[in-house]
Amino acid sequence: MTTPNPNPTIRRLDVASPVPADIDIANSVEPLPIADIAAELGLKPEHFDLYGKYKAKVLLSVLDELKGQQDGYYVVVGGITPTPLGEGKSTTTVGLCQALGAFLDKKVVTCLRQPSQGPTFGIKGGAAGGGYSQVIPMDEFNLHLTGDIHAITAANNLLAAAIDTRIFHEASQSDKALFNRLCPANKEGKRRFADVMLRRLIKLGISKTDPAELTPDEVRRFARLDIDPESITWRRVMDVNDRFLRKITIGQGPDEKGMVRETGFDIAVASEIMAVLALTTSLSDMRERLGRMVIGNSKSGEPITADDLGVGGALTVLMKDAIHPTLMQTLEGTPVLVHAGPFANIAHGNSSIVADKIALKLVGKGGFVVTEAGFGSDIGTEKFMDIKCRYSGLVPQCAIVVATIRALKMHGGGPDVVAGKPLDHAYVSENVALVEAGCVNLAKHIANTKSYGVNVVVAINKFASDTEAEMDVVRNAALAAGAFDAVVCTHHAHGGKGAVELGLAVQRACESQSDSLKFLYPLESGIKEKIEAIANSYGASGVEYSEQAEKQIEMYTKQGFSNLPICMAKTQYSFSHVPSMKGAPSGFVLPIRDVRASIGAGFIYPLVGTMSTMPGLPTRPCFYEIDIDTATGKVMGLS
Amino acid sequence: MTTPNPNPTIRRLDVASPVPADIDIANSVEPLPIADIAAELGLKPEHFDLYGKYKAKVLLSVLDELKGQQDGYYVVVGGITPTPLGEGKSTTTVGLCQALGAFLDKKVVTCLRQPSQGPTFGIKGGAAGGGYSQVIPMDEFNLHLTGDIHAITAANNLLAAAIDTRIFHEASQSDKALFNRLCPANKEGKRRFADVMLRRLIKLGISKTDPAELTPDEVRRFARLDIDPESITWRRVMDVNDRFLRKITIGQGPDEKGMVRETGFDIAVASEIMAVLALTTSLSDMRERLGRMVIGNSKSGEPITADDLGVGGALTVLMKDAIHPTLMQTLEGTPVLVHAGPFANIAHGNSSIVADKIALKLVGKGGFVVTEAGFGSDIGTEKFMDIKCRYSGLVPQCAIVVATIRALKMHGGGPDVVAGKPLDHAYVSENVALVEAGCVNLAKHIANTKSYGVNVVVAINKFASDTEAEMDVVRNAALAAGAFDAVVCTHHAHGGKGAVELGLAVQRACESQSDSLKFLYPLESGIKEKIEAIANSYGASGVEYSEQAEKQIEMYTKQGFSNLPICMAKTQYSFSHVPSMKGAPSGFVLPIRDVRASIGAGFIYPLVGTMSTMPGLPTRPCFYEIDIDTATGKVMGLS
Repeated sequence: MTTPNPNPTIRRLDVASPVPADIDIANSVEPLPIADIAAELGLKPEHFDLYGKYKAKVLLSVLDELKGQQDGYYVVVGGITPTPLGEGKSTTTVGLCQALGAFLDKKVVTCLRQPSQGPTFGIKGGAAGGGYSQVIPMDEFNLHLTGDIHAITAANNLLAAAIDTRIFHEASQSDKALFNRLCPANKEGKRRFADVMLRRLIKLGISKTDPAELTPDEVRRFARLDIDPESITWRRVMDVNDRFLRKITIGQGPDEKGMVRETGFDIAVASEIMAVLALTTSLSDMRERLGRMVIGNSKSGEPITADDLGVGGALTVLMKDAIHPTLMQTLEGTPVLVHAGPFANIAHGNSSIVADKIALKLVGKGGFVVTEAGFGSDIGTEKFMDIKCRYSGLVPQCAIVVATIRALKMHGGGPDVVAGKPLDHAYVSENVALVEAGCVNLAKHIANTKSYGVNVVVAINKFASDTEAEMDVVRNAALAAGAFDAVVCTHHAHGGKGAVELGLAVQRACESQSDSLKFLYPLESGIKEKIEAIANSYGASGVEYSEQAEKQIEMYTKQGFSNLPICMAKTQYSFSHVPSMKGAPSGFVLPIRDVRASIGAGFIYPLVGTMSTMPGLPTRPCFYEIDIDTATGKVMGLS
Repeated sequence: MTTPNPNPTIRRLDVASPVPADIDIANSVEPLPIADIAAELGLKPEHFDLYGKYKAKVLLSVLDELKGQQDGYYVVVGGITPTPLGEGKSTTTVGLCQALGAFLDKKVVTCLRQPSQGPTFGIKGGAAGGGYSQVIPMDEFNLHLTGDIHAITAANNLLAAAIDTRIFHEASQSDKALFNRLCPANKEGKRRFADVMLRRLIKLGISKTDPAELTPDEVRRFARLDIDPESITWRRVMDVNDRFLRKITIGQGPDEKGMVRETGFDIAVASEIMAVLALTTSLSDMRERLGRMVIGNSKSGEPITADDLGVGGALTVLMKDAIHPTLMQTLEGTPVLVHAGPFANIAHGNSSIVADKIALKLVGKGGFVVTEAGFGSDIGTEKFMDIKCRYSGLVPQCAIVVATIRALKMHGGGPDVVAGKPLDHAYVSENVALVEAGCVNLAKHIANTKSYGVNVVVAINKFASDTEAEMDVVRNAALAAGAFDAVVCTHHAHGGKGAVELGLAVQRACESQSDSLKFLYPLESGIKEKIEAIANSYGASGVEYSEQAEKQIEMYTKQGFSNLPICMAKTQYSFSHVPSMKGAPSGFVLPIRDVRASIGAGFIYPLVGTMSTMPGLPTRPCFYEIDIDTATGKVMGLS
């Protein structure tokens, strides 16, 4: 276990006890030049672009070269139902990879989501892992990275501006004037369609390619999108926790002639374009997905797309660099691909397909790719299997369920856990009974995850105050619930060395797994059948649809979108829709408040209760502690 | 003039006639690895960070190493009052540098602003120059670049969110509750001030550093900013032409408890943070400027700053990479530094001080730095001299005034020039009388520019239809008005070769110039005196202040900000406030509608008439032509 690793980029950590602050650990380690990490992964210089010394974009073109290569093992990390403090899922993901790469001599790549800057400056802090299991440089990881979220924001908001401006221009122009402006005559008096307009013509069933040949009726149908303002589902986004933008009225300037409209901003990671980035499989696939994103309907009920507005190509151009994942490193010098960052409660919560695909080829046969799915198995893992794997065609060999004694005690009836407030005594002293009672939650996550036909390994993320007796209870409960193995890990305190046993268990689980994946529902069943299959997996006895939800389901079915997978927007704090229902609740009726669709990304998303798509700032946001040491340029106060 | 250049990065162009489309020229030249350009400039690897293969950030740390080096010659490029089509100022800036570097064997750096993505997708297209005088890769130049504008957007909007959320939290909490949340007790029950809070305490005259020692009155003064919502001048920004955000109402969500407020979005380049980036001189200077930005007043009339809100450090962290200029290259392989991008009509319209400083050291004695100032001399050059040079301490040896026959004909009484409409016959056939009449505009720009004590060289940017007789008129008028020289250039059609004579004239002008700079006004005079000095330079006979302007001037004077320079927000289409007053109008009274302040950036900005700070999209925006070739990854349709 401590044989010298032949990989020259591997770094051994000197760990201190008690564990110092995350930023202090991160700053204490000099990262390796990322070009060295890339070279060690076998990447040629033409397959990556440096972004500074410690980040590089791995270009999709590498997939062409590695086409013949076999994939490595594919491991997904999920968790039990978490407390608001988080159960160390990213930390476990990173720690496991440090173990596999730095102690078990495996080729390994960690695939993580890019964090949103909103929470970084708000209440949550960064998302680079913690303790001795982190991605570094952690400030680069948490801020801007290589600009992907900024590109999403720019593209999302260009589309938003195109919508309102188009309505504005259509309101004041005749069909002919509109058409003449859309297809202006050149110096020779000749008009032509832009390429993107041909897509709209095809959609309208008009096979002409010369503007001069259109009949007045065809001119009207082509030029007038006739968007119903009430039907617009496309919102603007911003990567800031700005609660005052949740609901706003726009168009109140005197030049906008009274065309006011109520709308709002979401946090940028909630943009459909983020979901497109996460689920796309190639540049041409991304072009198509961005073009077919639906922003609302025409007054006659036809879905209106980005390509109808003429902007699908421009959106792709804005996203052309964002499609390449970003290479970084762990504290112990193993490679990390950071890409896409959808939240798991309001979106599908998984990093990108292209990053996983590249990683699987780079590690090759016998290597490991470890990817994280947000929150509990009801949230991130379900969407990983039924949405992400369905689109990628990839099959995981092992799923990890991260559990903490703290969260199990909460599920067993422990007092409320509130971020920013001191933990109750129950959580920092032995209480075997609470842990035992809470294991129903773990057991249900194991069973649900296992139902996909994958081996489940439970990782018990050990805190200093956890006792042997408590951990024994969890191990036994996990095995009784059908887990392949259950292992205690101490990667937070010890880095990869603390997750070596977990690494060995994961290796055994992968080696004993046959490649197959059982989805929770077939795509062909109706929207309601699919929602009900998922609700059933939560433990619900039934589903209740609001009038609005019924209307939307009917509309999407009529529009031909009923064969898409389902992405539930649901609280992460319970299997049910009620955050306070801990453990493994059953018999509840799941309410569907509304149903929306991300046609470009490729899913229908029912809203279970009221989910905020724009966080706020507390009275004392994280930003109070964040500053720069102007002498050294080092960032201070990030957590 | 055609001796082989010893510089290995210099590239000779094969020019075609007629001149192909900009994007086709840009795509026809394979850019050199930017690391080669950096090496040729003498930059060591530790002084730049690659961002892909063709962009690099030049780190400010290079200034420490080059401290002993002498500066090169400093040349600013301004223009006459332009038509809406632009007179090729960026193109001339690039062409001149291609001439100096590729044909005259000089060390040269071009300093340009980063273009806003809003107009790139709207009506104007890109800003990388044109024809055979361009910065490449032009798609990289026009899109995202290295993320600086995105960083500005993120920082601007974090501050905006902090303002509204602070008002929200103050409204519902007692002084004590607020204070306890701002300075929470740690596990040992001890409270501490965050470093940024000490700045507020100093401002309040409280010298205590232990929260426990504050009196209830001090607690109230410290914790309650008591922002007057009516006084807030800080707006949100977006790098998109989104006219529907010009005026909006925020806070209409049910959770915001009816705390609605009217505000709006500006285009990102109009953010004060953009002005800070352009005018800062170091990381520590930027930290101070960002912290002292004023967002509005307390109800008792005290200015409230970003540091009062606790966010100055976080803003600096968001801007820590943006402070480094981006290195690119021209078509002929000469180096370009791209940095900051304020519009010249609503802001100060010049690229950054740090880029110019780095460039002057890199080219060294006998080398040339050519920097562009937006629009005419009344706009960009005036602000270059009175604001930018005042803060940098740098002195230009030569100022260029770019003129076109087209624009001079317009000033001589030619018909309206409208973007997107065919040019009138007068502009594409010889009309010496119109040109002659229009030279009053050129003469005034020369005289105004010369008044700073700098040699003025007129660059006549030749179009295919311009005749010898027309150009002779301009040359004569320029010399009569006191220009050091006046030269016809054809860099658009011929690249650097077409600007060799201009390069020689600039060289002579620089060599014959003594280093001194006469500002238009001293900082110590009052706000009104300074406004009037500038108005006088426009040709105005007086200034008229609105009631609101009077009130603001009084307030800023009382707050101690009267010693800042002035940044006029004025139309670029006339020396006056009326776009249709062409030539060199005089006797008009300049109306000041309002007066605002960018305290962090360091200037007062009077609004002359109504200036839009958020452009819109036309019926057929540029984005209709923009797409990606998914087979090659090449961007198509950018102009």
